Amino acid sequence: MRRVRILALTLLVSAGPGLAADSPNLTERYRPVSGKLIDAALADTEGYQRLTYLCYRIGNRLSGSASLEKAIAWSAEQMKSAGLTNVRVIPTKVPHWVRGAESARMLSPLDKPLHMLGLGGSIATPPGGITADVVAVSDFSELDKLGRDRVQGKIVLYNQEYRGYGTTVTYRTNGASRAAALGAVAALVRSVTPLAMQTPHTGAMYYDESQPKIPTAAVSPEEAMMMARLVADGVPVKVHLEMSARMEPDADSGDVIGEIRGKELPDEVVVMGGHIDSWDVGQGAQDDGASIMACLQALALMKKLGLEPRRTIRVAFWVNEENGGRGGEAYREFVGGQIRNQVAAIEMDGGAEAPVGFGAGVDQASQQMLQQIAKLLERVGAGEITGGGGGSDISPLMRDGVPGLAERTVGTHYFDWHHTETDTLDKVNPEDFRKNVAALAVMGYALADMPGRLTAVAGGGRRAR
Amino acid sequence: MRRVRILALTLLVSAGPGLAADSPNLTERYRPVSGKLIDAALADTEGYQRLTYLCYRIGNRLSGSASLEKAIAWSAEQMKSAGLTNVRVIPTKVPHWVRGAESARMLSPLDKPLHMLGLGGSIATPPGGITADVVAVSDFSELDKLGRDRVQGKIVLYNQEYRGYGTTVTYRTNGASRAAALGAVAALVRSVTPLAMQTPHTGAMYYDESQPKIPTAAVSPEEAMMMARLVADGVPVKVHLEMSARMEPDADSGDVIGEIRGKELPDEVVVMGGHIDSWDVGQGAQDDGASIMACLQALALMKKLGLEPRRTIRVAFWVNEENGGRGGEAYREFVGGQIRNQVAAIEMDGGAEAPVGFGAGVDQASQQMLQQIAKLLERVGAGEITGGGGGSDISPLMRDGVPGLAERTVGTHYFDWHHTETDTLDKVNPEDFRKNVAALAVMGYALADMPGRLTAVAGGGRRAR
Repeated sequence: MRRVRILALTLLVSAGPGLAADSPNLTERYRPVSGKLIDAALADTEGYQRLTYLCYRIGNRLSGSASLEKAIAWSAEQMKSAGLTNVRVIPTKVPHWVRGAESARMLSPLDKPLHMLGLGGSIATPPGGITADVVAVSDFSELDKLGRDRVQGKIVLYNQEYRGYGTTVTYRTNGASRAAALGAVAALVRSVTPLAMQTPHTGAMYYDESQPKIPTAAVSPEEAMMMARLVADGVPVKVHLEMSARMEPDADSGDVIGEIRGKELPDEVVVMGGHIDSWDVGQGAQDDGASIMACLQALALMKKLGLEPRRTIRVAFWVNEENGGRGGEAYREFVGGQIRNQVAAIEMDGGAEAPVGFGAGVDQASQQMLQQIAKLLERVGAGEITGGGGGSDISPLMRDGVPGLAERTVGTHYFDWHHTETDTLDKVNPEDFRKNVAALAVMGYALADMPGRLTAVAGGGRRAR
Repeated sequence: MRRVRILALTLLVSAGPGLAADSPNLTERYRPVSGKLIDAALADTEGYQRLTYLCYRIGNRLSGSASLEKAIAWSAEQMKSAGLTNVRVIPTKVPHWVRGAESARMLSPLDKPLHMLGLGGSIATPPGGITADVVAVSDFSELDKLGRDRVQGKIVLYNQEYRGYGTTVTYRTNGASRAAALGAVAALVRSVTPLAMQTPHTGAMYYDESQPKIPTAAVSPEEAMMMARLVADGVPVKVHLEMSARMEPDADSGDVIGEIRGKELPDEVVVMGGHIDSWDVGQGAQDDGASIMACLQALALMKKLGLEPRRTIRVAFWVNEENGGRGGEAYREFVGGQIRNQVAAIEMDGGAEAPVGFGAGVDQASQQMLQQIAKLLERVGAGEITGGGGGSDISPLMRDGVPGLAERTVGTHYFDWHHTETDTLDKVNPEDFRKNVAALAVMGYALADMPGRLTAVAGGGRRAR
């Protein structure tokens, strides 16, 4: 009986959220509304239809590309048709790297084309390309042991077996300059992935301005293994690399945002989103199209259900996450002096496989609040709250104290597809997608509506790119 | 005690195999020799080294190619250096299909290149290619329902979700002529694979001579799904296909064989092998390089151990399994009137993942013999005997009554890699490879040495290509 009475009370409380400023249990407070949101999310087909359009009719969308601008215009329309208000584009300049024609070929011991993708930011080879012998290393310490005598004039191949993205990605981002420091003429990097399916994975690289700039590309895991083995067996491996990549002047672009205005505290904002740009291969489905469509759909369902949280909830499609982060910085500038009113920022940038919950760099009391909310998400498997959180796009907010969350998934295959031609719509399971919508809707609504606010802890964020 | 006495007796029997023509238990008879063979196989590194050379220094080897002839010459050398006798090439003409330059591009609704591979045997497009709208079907019944009015002048896309290789491959082999019968100008086939990684899978196709010949190619599962979905949504899909494939005059090639002559019944032969040819992509590692190297190594280890079975055991690297079967027919001709002396034929053509045992189309008494031998293979997980068996290359022998066996593996990923750029050395796990060598060595030795012979049942074989 007692349980029944508490439930009844909670229903009253959640029907009038402004009345109870310190409800002890967010689980009970938001149980009714979360039930509606989850039911709606699990029955929704519109979100996946939007994702289908983005993937199949617009396609990939690198900063500076026409397809990105098409995606931005279309996204603003979608936000408007979902009933969001204050839909706008926050303008920013973005870097404009263009891949151009590119190829790599092993000339000896066998003559065969290599599966390659230039790395984002790389310079071109000289016209006619570069032909050189390959030296292969597993890591920087092996490179340094080889020394200038054996690296000078060579193409360095980094063949590090995948040890997790965060660990192995350094060969992609920093490998060229480390090799150039020893006189290498180009750098090839084994694709940063646990799966070998002859698929090259692109991604950002950065030059150390104190070193000569040399062209750099990813090769498939198979071909990295092959070349490294041949070299280890004393068989000379000669490769021809030809790239015409170039950096154009910065392009005009922008973040797309839309919101549901808060009923009581409209100046206080919970923002959630992902990035609208992608690499120039595949369809940017898991990275990060599904995330932005899931965030939009979470708000679209609130509108359909007539739900208005106390605070403003905003969806943001940040631009240029992949190779510059200009969208996150532009959003921070847009917020300006209102930074204290930014109640929480949720980023989803780990794909839309089955959700498991949220990571958050917040204090213990805040963790408890999140756990009370997450309890409502056990139904869709997303009831776990962990430390860490955030993401590239919200790191400028988190730097200034905004509590940052990352929506987290099982991530089983994410790095099989990441930054490749295989990141396509079919990789997004519709049921998993709907569960992500449910998780975002419930968490977003509760954070925007609950009596208290989260408190960030310093260094609570981690970058996830 | 009794058990001990039986074991002692069996040891004596197996030490003098000619003495006991009707040993009741092959398990005990071959326990000592199988122990030696399995120990040797599990410690062996030479076999995988040979496979490495085949994959990395010779590469793929389609009938008619220079690399196939290089592989044949190298294989004969390897057999000789393994100490085999009567090493020879059984000459045969093989079809010589040449892929040439090829590409496919979706022109609308988006302009993007498609991941494609022409199917083996396809004709070229007219110079300049074919541009047409796509009609998409899941199966032949949907195609027939569309009828000539809606197929005429179109490119037919077969988008059948993988239902197992044997079921779905009919769209690859027969799709072009079925589409041509309704006036289609080309046929695209969703790659026959359970895995979508933007990988097109080639393979043989055959024209119905009563229909017009149209060009045909495989596309990746992702792009088949995309185009089918767009068409289903009423979005016109236009594709440009350009292929320069051609059939050259038949080329000279041949099967490579070598043997260990039987100590007592040298004219009776157990043959085991796989096919030396492959498609013209990847390295033909799982299909079927690992198999022929495992078979060779099984005999190489017998030689190293000084084992000589009563009958002759022969290894065969059949040619042209992939697009003609000329090697299997040439081998049958080579055997000629000695067909009754062909005691058993083992084909391995399902990759070299972890072995599970053998399939055999033999009578019940023979099954029991096989089970007694297979019991010795439980140590390497290969103790299972099932019905069915054989393979393309040995089907001409089986047609004439030779008992046929298929070495079987778990086959977990085989069709992920089959006929693609991803069929490379790294897919062959060295430990699994060694277990296959063990299974082949023990089964081959026992069949060549045991008192009795297997008896085939009619229709006991199945084709596995």
